[in-house]
Amino acid sequence: MEKILTNKVINRLTLYHSILSDYMEREIENISSTNIAELLHIDNTTVRKDIALLGYKGKCKVGYKTSELKALIEETLKFEKLKTAFIIGAGNLGMALAKYDNFEAYGFKINALFDNSPEKIGQKINDKDIFSIKDFGKIMKKTDVKIAILTVPKAHAQEVTNFLIKSGIEYIWNFTPCVLNVPDNIQVWNENLIGNFLQFTVNHGKKDN
Amino acid sequence: MEKILTNKVINRLTLYHSILSDYMEREIENISSTNIAELLHIDNTTVRKDIALLGYKGKCKVGYKTSELKALIEETLKFEKLKTAFIIGAGNLGMALAKYDNFEAYGFKINALFDNSPEKIGQKINDKDIFSIKDFGKIMKKTDVKIAILTVPKAHAQEVTNFLIKSGIEYIWNFTPCVLNVPDNIQVWNENLIGNFLQFTVNHGKKDN
Repeated sequence: MEKILTNKVINRLTLYHSILSDYMEREIENISSTNIAELLHIDNTTVRKDIALLGYKGKCKVGYKTSELKALIEETLKFEKLKTAFIIGAGNLGMALAKYDNFEAYGFKINALFDNSPEKIGQKINDKDIFSIKDFGKIMKKTDVKIAILTVPKAHAQEVTNFLIKSGIEYIWNFTPCVLNVPDNIQVWNENLIGNFLQFTVNHGKKDN
Repeated sequence: MEKILTNKVINRLTLYHSILSDYMEREIENISSTNIAELLHIDNTTVRKDIALLGYKGKCKVGYKTSELKALIEETLKFEKLKTAFIIGAGNLGMALAKYDNFEAYGFKINALFDNSPEKIGQKINDKDIFSIKDFGKIMKKTDVKIAILTVPKAHAQEVTNFLIKSGIEYIWNFTPCVLNVPDNIQVWNENLIGNFLQFTVNHGKKDN
C-alpha cells in the first residue's frame, strides 16, 4: 500500500479488525459489509469503500472471508513490523498501558517502564520491568527502541522530554496534557484524550468514526 | 457557532487552548499564530485559518490577545456546559482518568467510579467515591448523568454495556478494545488508542494534528 490512508480510514480499519478478531474466535467464516456497518452504526457504503481501498472485493450474498480480510488489514496497517516502546512514568496511566494486551496484537510492544519512585523501581507489571529513570540512557543503548510513551505528571513533562531526547528518543507518544517543545527532528503524537472526546460532544454527539 | 467543526480543527483548538493556558500562567498578554505554529510544528496558515473560523482576527505584529482567544475557544468548544460522567471500572485506566485534573478545565466532570471489587468499593480517588456496581441504578437515578466511561476488562465489556443501557446511560465513551453492540439510540465513542497511534506510525510518522 503506497497510498496514504486518512486517519479516519485507519481508525475504522482497526475497528473492523476488532470485529474480525471476534468473528475468528467465534469461527464465523464470512462477514458482510452490513454486519460491520450495523455493529459500528455507520453507513454500509463507507465500509465497502474502505475495504475496496485495500483492493479486496467481497462476493455477492457471501461477503468477505473473515480470515482474508483480517490478514489484509494487518498487512495494510503494517502490524508485522513490531514497534517497541518504553513507558515513561509508572503511574496509573502508565500501568494501564503496560497492561493493555491488545497492543501486541497490533505489533506494538512495551519493552519496559521507567519511574523515579523507589517503591515502584524493581517491580514488574505484566512481565515488564520498572527501571529507575536514572538508568534510562544505559538501558536504551542496549536496545533499538526509539519510541517513548510519556505518562509523567504535567509538571515534569517538558523536563523529562528534554532528557529523553538527549538520550536518543525520536518519537514521543504524549499522554500528558502539555504541548511539548521539541526540535524539528523529533516527532510528537499528542494523545489528546479530551480533544478526542470533545469531537464527540461538540458536534452534538454525531459520531464520526 | 452553528457550523460543524471538523475533528481535526477541534483537536487543534484544544492544543491551542493548552498553549494559551500556559501563556496565561506566565502572564504573556499576546500570542502570534507563529508562536502557536512553531510549538506544534504545524503550518502557520493552518493556525490562522482555524482562528479565522472562530471569527477572530489578530493584529499585525501584535498577534492575538491571549485571554480573548482562550475565552473564544472555550465558548466554541462549549466548555461552560459542564458534562458529568461515571467511570465504570476502577482499574488502572479508570483511576488514571479519575485523576486527570485537566478534564474539569474542559467542562468535564467525573461524578463517581463503579467497580465490583470489595477492596476498591468504599475508597475514594481524587475525592470521587468508588461505589459498588450493584448500586449503579440507584445512584444514577439521583443524578442526571447520561455518560459512562467504560474501562472494564474486555471480557465483561458487552455484559456491562447492556447493564448500563438498561439503567439509562445514553452515551458510552468506550476505552475497552471491544466493539460494543448497542441499540441505535445509544451513542458510543470508541477511544481506540491503538488506532490513534497507528495513524501516527502507518503514514511514516507524518504528523496530522
